Amino acid sequence: MRLAFLPALLFALSACETLPAASSDDSDIRYVTDGATGYPFSPAVEADSWVFLSGALGITPEGKLIEGGIEPETRQTMDNIQATLEAEGLGWDRVVKCSVFLADIAEWPAFNEVYKTYFDGNFPARSALGASGLALEARVEIECIARR
Amino acid sequence: MRLAFLPALLFALSACETLPAASSDDSDIRYVTDGATGYPFSPAVEADSWVFLSGALGITPEGKLIEGGIEPETRQTMDNIQATLEAEGLGWDRVVKCSVFLADIAEWPAFNEVYKTYFDGNFPARSALGASGLALEARVEIECIARR
Amino acid sequence: MRLAFLPALLFALSACETLPAASSDDSDIRYVTDGATGYPFSPAVEADSWVFLSGALGITPEGKLIEGGIEPETRQTMDNIQATLEAEGLGWDRVVKCSVFLADIAEWPAFNEVYKTYFDGNFPARSALGASGLALEARVEIECIARR
Repeated sequence: MRLAFLPALLFALSACETLPAASSDDSDIRYVTDGATGYPFSPAVEADSWVFLSGALGITPEGKLIEGGIEPETRQTMDNIQATLEAEGLGWDRVVKCSVFLADIAEWPAFNEVYKTYFDGNFPARSALGASGLALEARVEIECIARR
Repeated sequence: MRLAFLPALLFALSACETLPAASSDDSDIRYVTDGATGYPFSPAVEADSWVFLSGALGITPEGKLIEGGIEPETRQTMDNIQATLEAEGLGWDRVVKCSVFLADIAEWPAFNEVYKTYFDGNFPARSALGASGLALEARVEIECIARR
Repeated sequence: MRLAFLPALLFALSACETLPAASSDDSDIRYVTDGATGYPFSPAVEADSWVFLSGALGITPEGKLIEGGIEPETRQTMDNIQATLEAEGLGWDRVVKCSVFLADIAEWPAFNEVYKTYFDGNFPARSALGASGLALEARVEIECIARR
């Protein structure tokens, strides 16, 4: 009877002892370098199960901006973000927040039409604004925060 | 005497056993849809006790931008954010970070005069910048991150 | 033999009992006011070991924008951020995400050259965009999120 306490107590202890380890993992920062461009930013950085993705552009694997204006460029940008998410074992359903920078805010409706097709009814929080210019003369840049 | 251990042990176990559950809740994403506009973003999204609010504009419940320039528009924008916060049981004292996008950076001082009246001495971290354009031709858009 | 359980059980309990306290600390918001400017934002705000820094400009301790264009201004901005980080016991290796606002996106390459010297090979996630204007007529504003 007395010994019956032992396994339960050991379980209680082992459960509790995972805490300090978990807590120290929470402070770790992990740099995602797949798809790095040579520019001074990581494609994504993770800490405490939050994944911060760098602003993405509608560039092809060759590093050239895709042609054809806001619609193909939005599609390529979203595909690039999706590739980064999938390489991390994540999907659009784990994205909680996006920031959208447009070269011309007049393209907001056309942007929205492509953007919304990537979601299944549940949309991340979002801000959108016109920028006075984007790198590589892009028409759109999108930055996301995902939750593992 | 031996049985006296039992309640304490059960308490220890029950306290520890809440951990895996709490940890799986931390991964949950909750979409706030009250006040959704039909545009592809949620008014707010919560994960792990962090609440990301979408960029808010100074629109009335009818979806029209309020008239009168930067001051009434800032007030309406802040009131709209406050309504979203309050519906979540939160207040301005739970907002840790704001991003402010202005149609004209020259309106930054006038914006500040209205903005600061919503806080009780403790201000969130903040960035502000001029945008080359905002949705609905707004003069200001404000995005906030709150901690539950 | 029976009493041998007691220290282990007390340890198990005490380990578990730190949980509610830790969990309530996670909800605390701490405002960093060192270096506050009189404008309605805190230099940094911390919650749950996340440190949100306000957008920083290349101003001297006297509050004047440093002269000489994008390069000295980037250096001064990064030094200002570093001072805020160091006052918090943090360094660039704890920064997971930056947002960069440039008065002229054409200065992006020159900005990058200075920016990258502050890092040791591991770069935060980042977005950069041209703003139509920045406070104090700055050429660059940088906002960071750090993990304690």
